[in-house]
Amino acid sequence: MTKIWTPLILINFKTYAEATGKNAIKLAKTIEDVSLKTETCIGLAPQFVDIAPITNAVSVPVFAQHIDPVEPGSYTGHVLPGSVKAAGAVGTLINHSERRLRLADIDVAIKRSREVNLASVVCANNQVVSAAIATLRPNMIAVEPPELIGTGIPVSKAKPEVVTDTVEVVKKTIPKVIVLCGAGITRADDVAAALKLGTQGVLVASGVVRAKDPHKVLLKFAEELLQEKS
Amino acid sequence: MTKIWTPLILINFKTYAEATGKNAIKLAKTIEDVSLKTETCIGLAPQFVDIAPITNAVSVPVFAQHIDPVEPGSYTGHVLPGSVKAAGAVGTLINHSERRLRLADIDVAIKRSREVNLASVVCANNQVVSAAIATLRPNMIAVEPPELIGTGIPVSKAKPEVVTDTVEVVKKTIPKVIVLCGAGITRADDVAAALKLGTQGVLVASGVVRAKDPHKVLLKFAEELLQEKS
Amino acid sequence: MTKIWTPLILINFKTYAEATGKNAIKLAKTIEDVSLKTETCIGLAPQFVDIAPITNAVSVPVFAQHIDPVEPGSYTGHVLPGSVKAAGAVGTLINHSERRLRLADIDVAIKRSREVNLASVVCANNQVVSAAIATLRPNMIAVEPPELIGTGIPVSKAKPEVVTDTVEVVKKTIPKVIVLCGAGITRADDVAAALKLGTQGVLVASGVVRAKDPHKVLLKFAEELLQEKS
Amino acid sequence: MTKIWTPLILINFKTYAEATGKNAIKLAKTIEDVSLKTETCIGLAPQFVDIAPITNAVSVPVFAQHIDPVEPGSYTGHVLPGSVKAAGAVGTLINHSERRLRLADIDVAIKRSREVNLASVVCANNQVVSAAIATLRPNMIAVEPPELIGTGIPVSKAKPEVVTDTVEVVKKTIPKVIVLCGAGITRADDVAAALKLGTQGVLVASGVVRAKDPHKVLLKFAEELLQEKS
Repeated sequence: MTKIWTPLILINFKTYAEATGKNAIKLAKTIEDVSLKTETCIGLAPQFVDIAPITNAVSVPVFAQHIDPVEPGSYTGHVLPGSVKAAGAVGTLINHSERRLRLADIDVAIKRSREVNLASVVCANNQVVSAAIATLRPNMIAVEPPELIGTGIPVSKAKPEVVTDTVEVVKKTIPKVIVLCGAGITRADDVAAALKLGTQGVLVASGVVRAKDPHKVLLKFAEELLQEKS
Repeated sequence: MTKIWTPLILINFKTYAEATGKNAIKLAKTIEDVSLKTETCIGLAPQFVDIAPITNAVSVPVFAQHIDPVEPGSYTGHVLPGSVKAAGAVGTLINHSERRLRLADIDVAIKRSREVNLASVVCANNQVVSAAIATLRPNMIAVEPPELIGTGIPVSKAKPEVVTDTVEVVKKTIPKVIVLCGAGITRADDVAAALKLGTQGVLVASGVVRAKDPHKVLLKFAEELLQEKS
Repeated sequence: MTKIWTPLILINFKTYAEATGKNAIKLAKTIEDVSLKTETCIGLAPQFVDIAPITNAVSVPVFAQHIDPVEPGSYTGHVLPGSVKAAGAVGTLINHSERRLRLADIDVAIKRSREVNLASVVCANNQVVSAAIATLRPNMIAVEPPELIGTGIPVSKAKPEVVTDTVEVVKKTIPKVIVLCGAGITRADDVAAALKLGTQGVLVASGVVRAKDPHKVLLKFAEELLQEKS
Repeated sequence: MTKIWTPLILINFKTYAEATGKNAIKLAKTIEDVSLKTETCIGLAPQFVDIAPITNAVSVPVFAQHIDPVEPGSYTGHVLPGSVKAAGAVGTLINHSERRLRLADIDVAIKRSREVNLASVVCANNQVVSAAIATLRPNMIAVEPPELIGTGIPVSKAKPEVVTDTVEVVKKTIPKVIVLCGAGITRADDVAAALKLGTQGVLVASGVVRAKDPHKVLLKFAEELLQEKS
């Protein structure tokens, strides 16, 4: 199985045209290339239908964008955690602000992820919700204020206390839970800032996917990561 | 592109363990085998992650179990119609009783399907809802009272008027819309009854997927289809 | 029971502060005053908790803003059609763009309304959805493109074909269904335009509720109604 | 304002016919009578439309069954916390298993309740979810496994560890949060058992509302409460 380690850059492909079908494969190869060259851990979260083709094509960690809190059975149109795993994913986003779940369903989704050996990355919109999620013991928490998503204004600048409070409360509750910083990350500076605030990586989407030159942007991100680590 | 014709048997894989990952591929090959031997049209609707592997492995028509009414963009965890198409699907279920949509979203989902050239199979729970859906001009309507799904009691026996009323109202509204009969189909008799009530095929799930010998069951279904056609 | 007749002005109180609690009673009395003075039918749709106090205070037709498609039973936090009726309402909005329902639930909500003798006013976002709703036989259809709600740009100007197409298709399907025109109505002109396009009234919210002088605005609306009628 | 104190019996009227409209008023008076006679705190949660008539008729604490996480504005068909308060309620249920909310919305609903001075009673389906909710600092947590609701099998018998674990974790997180025990309570014994497990009251629905003689049942419940307290 492809390994996940920190610091981690996790790239959310959303349903961007630039990251769908053949474009998704191409972008995954770009990501793999930067990952291999810089020896950094870069994961990606493509659309459900693109998971299998991508896990066949590259060896970086692949995440689902969502799973449903269900077991095998009569659930037409649902995303079974075990199916995502069988398709080669090593983890999954849960409760992204564009796909929020009910609290009881987040609890079950994390449990199912654990059962099928998928790393759970649960998204939180603020530090209070991060604290609530931490009690459910996911593998990672990605904190991103939804109002900053896609704006290019990084949370590390607009609301650094959301990040530092999240890191503090999560580390106090379950020290081993990894905290990622999301929302508005477009420049290498933003990656550096996120790490300085105590997180162990970033969750980024349009900043990479819709960049004119994703390879170049990602290379800078990875170099920032290496510098911070050293 | 793999062609769809009628009478049609459409098999919903749901999230059954018997139709997930490797099992899904195996079942798809069984379906292809019966389809080729009997020269009948048998489609299948696997989970999202299994669409690409299945379209690579077999040449029968593959449908998504659901699409979201969205265009490319910021929709984490959503199912983009164009992605499903790019993965090789030729159609999609919409509004299955286990994945019901809001009315305005059904309208958009049908339009998006049309734009990306996916055949839309919209599910209805009764004849009144079938009539409403017909006005939205999908390619097919699958009528199945949810209380009969998975029971083994076919709608043709329990509520034949739901089927005949649907056929009547749909043919009056938009004659070319194809009507499928779902819910409770487990025996070849049920397939025959569905066609006799005026439908052009069946939507079936557990009756095939969870059968002890899916090949045998499906062969009987296909033979019934041929007999009715002749 | 308070009678509803056409042409009708229906005022949606939403959850505006100007139309909550004591303000809701005051606004209801303003509405009653204009209705009595001009002998026009003006209805209002307050929040659930304000229905009983308002039906006690005034004699104009009161509508719920939403009902749930349920019968008496274990449905905590749901809005029972019979309760709304018992509180004195004579009708209800269904499927407002800010409270959209699944198609099968719209079907049931209309049926339940009929059973408990509530007039159903089902909202549609465009002419295609209006046609689908007409087949479900509600008492009224209010067509309002959601993108115009609250903008002050009336649908009669921005998209007159949405209104005329709705009137045409609804009258062809079920002639007795009343069509209301919503979205963006703020001036008496807009009321006149709505009636000229063939509707039998308007659904209006901020244009009255948040007006500096609701009495004055409403009086002009009512006068326009009388002029069109004569 | 009507005061809430512990131990508390909170009666959820749901959408039961026995607790709708005039029946709701009658039942509220029965509750008030037992409360006054026994000097125990008994609250009730009627449907939205019945809140105002009930707060006018009796002086026991009245709760909403749900609120939406919204502020005054364009939210047709939503339940504004401030409106519920204006209608005379002193508190509200949030996230009942029949009206579950997304996690981020529970966070906002609790904050809004606090702002308008409504006591928040957040429902949890198990001890893990109780712990998550405790971090959001509601006034009370009602723990009730949904599979026991309406069964007559009390959680204190079927799953006592759900209750004791909830009490433990909540008291450790925020000592002042009150824990109520719900699901399956029908006999005075069940009330006693709930208190012995460390809770400060019960959330009960059909056990009282649908009892042949609600007055008699409730009197026994109240006596049990007094005995435990002494």
